[in-house]
Amino acid sequence: MEHQKTKSRFITLTTDFGLRDAFVGVMKGVILNINPAAVIVDITHGIPQGDLDAASFALDQAYAFFPPESIHIVVVDPGVGTDRRILLARAGNSFFLAPDNAVLKYVFAGHQDAVVLSVTNRYYFLPHTSQTFHGRDIVAPVAAHLSLGVPFVDFGQKIDDYLRGDILLPTRRNKTISGEIVYIDHFGNCITNISKKELKSEQIEEINIEKFQFERLSHSYAEHEVGEPLAIVSSHDHLEIAVRDGNAAQILNIKKGDRVEVILQ
Amino acid sequence: MEHQKTKSRFITLTTDFGLRDAFVGVMKGVILNINPAAVIVDITHGIPQGDLDAASFALDQAYAFFPPESIHIVVVDPGVGTDRRILLARAGNSFFLAPDNAVLKYVFAGHQDAVVLSVTNRYYFLPHTSQTFHGRDIVAPVAAHLSLGVPFVDFGQKIDDYLRGDILLPTRRNKTISGEIVYIDHFGNCITNISKKELKSEQIEEINIEKFQFERLSHSYAEHEVGEPLAIVSSHDHLEIAVRDGNAAQILNIKKGDRVEVILQ
Amino acid sequence: MEHQKTKSRFITLTTDFGLRDAFVGVMKGVILNINPAAVIVDITHGIPQGDLDAASFALDQAYAFFPPESIHIVVVDPGVGTDRRILLARAGNSFFLAPDNAVLKYVFAGHQDAVVLSVTNRYYFLPHTSQTFHGRDIVAPVAAHLSLGVPFVDFGQKIDDYLRGDILLPTRRNKTISGEIVYIDHFGNCITNISKKELKSEQIEEINIEKFQFERLSHSYAEHEVGEPLAIVSSHDHLEIAVRDGNAAQILNIKKGDRVEVILQ
Repeated sequence: MEHQKTKSRFITLTTDFGLRDAFVGVMKGVILNINPAAVIVDITHGIPQGDLDAASFALDQAYAFFPPESIHIVVVDPGVGTDRRILLARAGNSFFLAPDNAVLKYVFAGHQDAVVLSVTNRYYFLPHTSQTFHGRDIVAPVAAHLSLGVPFVDFGQKIDDYLRGDILLPTRRNKTISGEIVYIDHFGNCITNISKKELKSEQIEEINIEKFQFERLSHSYAEHEVGEPLAIVSSHDHLEIAVRDGNAAQILNIKKGDRVEVILQ
Repeated sequence: MEHQKTKSRFITLTTDFGLRDAFVGVMKGVILNINPAAVIVDITHGIPQGDLDAASFALDQAYAFFPPESIHIVVVDPGVGTDRRILLARAGNSFFLAPDNAVLKYVFAGHQDAVVLSVTNRYYFLPHTSQTFHGRDIVAPVAAHLSLGVPFVDFGQKIDDYLRGDILLPTRRNKTISGEIVYIDHFGNCITNISKKELKSEQIEEINIEKFQFERLSHSYAEHEVGEPLAIVSSHDHLEIAVRDGNAAQILNIKKGDRVEVILQ
Repeated sequence: MEHQKTKSRFITLTTDFGLRDAFVGVMKGVILNINPAAVIVDITHGIPQGDLDAASFALDQAYAFFPPESIHIVVVDPGVGTDRRILLARAGNSFFLAPDNAVLKYVFAGHQDAVVLSVTNRYYFLPHTSQTFHGRDIVAPVAAHLSLGVPFVDFGQKIDDYLRGDILLPTRRNKTISGEIVYIDHFGNCITNISKKELKSEQIEEINIEKFQFERLSHSYAEHEVGEPLAIVSSHDHLEIAVRDGNAAQILNIKKGDRVEVILQ
């Protein structure tokens, strides 16, 4: 698989750069200068600075919806300028470029057969490589060359000792599934690490989060009044605490890391 | 008209998703996976949560400037997960996809001959349709298939009972036009619902907003000193209260809904 | 040079429009309506309102990384509606469109042979030109027509009296280079106007900024502990004050305009 020549127009970006500076535009310029036919799509640049959890979550929500052979870039890189490596991974039918800091943890968890390189071939970097902006100097040009059809294996050495990261899985003990809030979105929806697979609504006795209690898993917002809290399966197939037309995190005072318990019948 | 086959590369997005989460990127992935030649343009994702007024206003400012056959998506959808319908409209030379919540009110007002479908043909949805993210599961794939040339009528049933919405028109009584502030932009410019057509500057006696009074309609900022308030015709051809190089909403303490009166001579 | 016919797909945007309103989307619509093959890239729309310094800095960070013949638009335009001119410049292998307010100062400083037009040919404007949104009515359509191959000289008259702007250069007196903080980025990195060329790290005795002192120029963040302040050459080749994994501006209370001194040995 690694020797296969690929050609992909699609490159996505997930960073903590924000949108105030020129960083994102600069990376796009570098890519388009190498591959003018590349199509670059922003996943988000609003990852809180250095928040690897939020970045891995955003990427995991998005990547599977893109065309095969898409190249997904993540630049959330507190280690820039240290000797941390930059990874190029082939997993499923997609490519991923990110620092070796476990920001790809959900990708690796979902694709045990991922092939991972340490990106070392300076031929594909910008000629002058800064100590502080590897997104521009290494990641963007490597993605652009990959999108032009440079073979995957040309970019570096295959490695096995990359950081796979820890995924916080819920635990089950007798009739209780224990998880936690792993992400709070823009709307205040509170997403847990308890997946749909682990739940079957007909078996639920109650769902507890902090001092709030839900007697069942709702099937839609429509079952509730405006302002009413509910537990539902999120668009990403995880248990989610929401408030109809409201901000659950604010109204219920829920924070990332809060414990969630599902009691089964 | 409805049976005509179209093909449009251009799809615009207007949402209240914000740019912090992956929602917008996900919708783009879905579209590009179905039509890799689609060109997706953001109108804005900064609509305040559930603010149908702001969304309809943003769309109205923008859509007429896009190429013919463009497909304009609006996802501001407090009713997601209820039985509210999703509409596909052909109006003028453009297409529109939005929940049936009157967010297209300016489109319908401007195109009495709009043809509107209730989007029901699940063949064009994503295979698994969530209860909470119809932008991803229904709207994005329908837009992508439409952009590929699937005939308009294939997406659902023609309906007439969609929500047309109420447009707050100014009233006229003798020599007084009464309107209100309908939008305040990023610069603090305060836009009224009084259109240029209703005004002829030579006839204006005075313009009143709350405790401020303007004796005439200005033709350009250049007629004023920096910091001076003025009344002008906005880029969208409505009466606007502005401050040269300043934030009128802040300086004059103007809020959405504030009454505006134009006294004619 | 000026008579050469060009054709560029790439148009970049740098504005103070923010992302809440439809302004940016509208400009893109105008461009794509004229040249459906244009590829539009955002540098940033987060320039503080009317901040010409920040806009010129963002553009300078970015433009050289884009493909040759790219057209770079800057709309930060406190003078809209006055008689300030709109400039179209050819400099190096790029084009620039901006108000005549010195926002292109770094471009002009870097390209003494820039050819500059005052954009006057209304044939390439939108038919109805507002007093308040020249980005939409003049700049966007001119850029689009230029990208289609309309000859540069067709857009207006060559001028020499455009505003070149002042670039705040550091001064050198004996063994002291005196400069200042010219930009603070999203991460709190504090960038000075002292360029790499003026520094050779082996000669530095100390670097002073307000009450903080650095004994050397670091080569990478990796030489420092998390939270430690350092002086480094930025990705844009200027002296920068940073904090490893931290926000230097906040931690060290550095503001734009703060004096920086480099004492040489």
